[in-house]
Amino acid sequence: MAQAIQIPLQVRFGDIDAYNHVNNVVYLQYLEDARVRLIRTPFAEDVPPGSAASFNDLITDDLFTLVGRNEIEYLAPIAFRTDPVLVNIWVTNVGGSSFDFGYTITDADTSVVFAQAATSMVLVSRATGRPVRLTGAQRAALETWRGGPVHFRRRPAELPAGVELPATPATQGAR
Amino acid sequence: MAQAIQIPLQVRFGDIDAYNHVNNVVYLQYLEDARVRLIRTPFAEDVPPGSAASFNDLITDDLFTLVGRNEIEYLAPIAFRTDPVLVNIWVTNVGGSSFDFGYTITDADTSVVFAQAATSMVLVSRATGRPVRLTGAQRAALETWRGGPVHFRRRPAELPAGVELPATPATQGAR
Amino acid sequence: MAQAIQIPLQVRFGDIDAYNHVNNVVYLQYLEDARVRLIRTPFAEDVPPGSAASFNDLITDDLFTLVGRNEIEYLAPIAFRTDPVLVNIWVTNVGGSSFDFGYTITDADTSVVFAQAATSMVLVSRATGRPVRLTGAQRAALETWRGGPVHFRRRPAELPAGVELPATPATQGAR
Amino acid sequence: MAQAIQIPLQVRFGDIDAYNHVNNVVYLQYLEDARVRLIRTPFAEDVPPGSAASFNDLITDDLFTLVGRNEIEYLAPIAFRTDPVLVNIWVTNVGGSSFDFGYTITDADTSVVFAQAATSMVLVSRATGRPVRLTGAQRAALETWRGGPVHFRRRPAELPAGVELPATPATQGAR
Repeated sequence: MAQAIQIPLQVRFGDIDAYNHVNNVVYLQYLEDARVRLIRTPFAEDVPPGSAASFNDLITDDLFTLVGRNEIEYLAPIAFRTDPVLVNIWVTNVGGSSFDFGYTITDADTSVVFAQAATSMVLVSRATGRPVRLTGAQRAALETWRGGPVHFRRRPAELPAGVELPATPATQGAR
Repeated sequence: MAQAIQIPLQVRFGDIDAYNHVNNVVYLQYLEDARVRLIRTPFAEDVPPGSAASFNDLITDDLFTLVGRNEIEYLAPIAFRTDPVLVNIWVTNVGGSSFDFGYTITDADTSVVFAQAATSMVLVSRATGRPVRLTGAQRAALETWRGGPVHFRRRPAELPAGVELPATPATQGAR
Repeated sequence: MAQAIQIPLQVRFGDIDAYNHVNNVVYLQYLEDARVRLIRTPFAEDVPPGSAASFNDLITDDLFTLVGRNEIEYLAPIAFRTDPVLVNIWVTNVGGSSFDFGYTITDADTSVVFAQAATSMVLVSRATGRPVRLTGAQRAALETWRGGPVHFRRRPAELPAGVELPATPATQGAR
Repeated sequence: MAQAIQIPLQVRFGDIDAYNHVNNVVYLQYLEDARVRLIRTPFAEDVPPGSAASFNDLITDDLFTLVGRNEIEYLAPIAFRTDPVLVNIWVTNVGGSSFDFGYTITDADTSVVFAQAATSMVLVSRATGRPVRLTGAQRAALETWRGGPVHFRRRPAELPAGVELPATPATQGAR
């Protein structure tokens, strides 16, 4: 199994909120920057001219990627620090037109885990706005980052299959 | 069943990213502001002097609330707009020392759902940093906002109970 | 003299920094949103079909506006609040291809002034990336918001004309 | 004359706005992080135990620093990049209880200047909220970063001394 790629990211003073720790929303920005940097990481030092040098080069101009969902579990607060945090990022699943990232946000030596998280991405056509099947080259690139699932500790209990629930209150109207 | 509270929130120009839509991370900031505004909403127009006027008043100085997890499913992009978006927020669960919010982010008339989401909160003692049991008054306040679960469409399959998995790659080391 | 337009803007929990007040950088975001909302404000209730309804409609697709400079003086801290702050915005100058905004950020009744600020904008051609002269219609629209200069209290002394100074250290190299 | 300290800062994907460049407000966040990192930079490799190791250690618990003003001139747009930008920072003035920073934001080799800026800081007592005189040690530390003034190109003309102007429209009322 491949190992997670480690992306060091700077903590900004503005990331700190009134509780004197990195705000919970900002953790998601760390995940985004880890993804953005991962997919721009060169596949190898020597890439033949004309070949795609990174996964980002495989996302041609007629395509883009959308975030379909984010899930994050906060395990420890992050105080302001001049040393970067590490986002450890890997691929947990490759589907027809989607793929999933797993992450942990840790200290430099990964001994303290501040959070673990998962993101689902969808490959979309700019022309149609519809999902597009991943090509073999895209799939192969994603597989090099393949790792196991994220072990969330606190995911709420799933509903038993077949149970029908009333609409969520938000779709019923408002007070 | 109580109905969701609607919190109108302004979209900022800086919320828009290079894809010309509200950045996926910013949606989480909308959720946070909905929570922050919900818990400061007065319980009633006339509150006897000395009584708690809002849930926020029930979080005494020796306590604070922590975000334990966030989950969000993106359903439609949000373009820049001078009209606010609505965050529809309700309580999906009240536990011993924790409670969960459900949300949808919608257009003013709730006809377009931009996202649905859930957050787990934990009540914590400032002195010990440990979870603290919710009081009867806190519990009663949360129950007034009680609604059904969030029906996520794309939650990845759960692992069957009892399956033991190797450690996530991030904790194994780094490449 | 025209009066400032008042733009109410919500304070977000994430605007608050470790000092428990709105972060100094975020004040600039308030100015940006005031500008963005001002230029989308309809000129009048009844605009003939086909006419520009707001200044933003006068910025045709071949044009955009750039921020050339920002200056801000902080006069009072802003604590978290569920009531909006007001950005009072007006035009202080209309040049050949540029124009300047003046602002104060205040409480609802303008009795507390949190900051005063100024921004220079430049109208630029998308095709050439060069400044473009303001049209008569653009100029006329800006003049309706015309007010006096911002009276900064603490602007550092200007250098006397003709004094030649060594290059700034930043351009000399780095240590 | 001392040379500017160079602080490399990562650009985040979320810094990019709808114009596909780093948003003008975010430049100010880069300045803030440069300050925050500068004042935490150790004075020397070997500091005797018990001595202040950085300027930040000289800001004792009864004190804090406030941003009094910011001024920035934008000279070139910053596209998204995985390489950091450099903030070159130095001290332009040391007053009784205040001090000023000058900056340029540049490419790694300082050949492209994206912006130049200045910030006034005030040393304040936590107990009284009033400015406090800089100590000799604080002053000496700041002087090690001393450089020349920032040469803004576009600062608006100052008003001639003695000219009395009407109140700014913002303080007159609102429409």
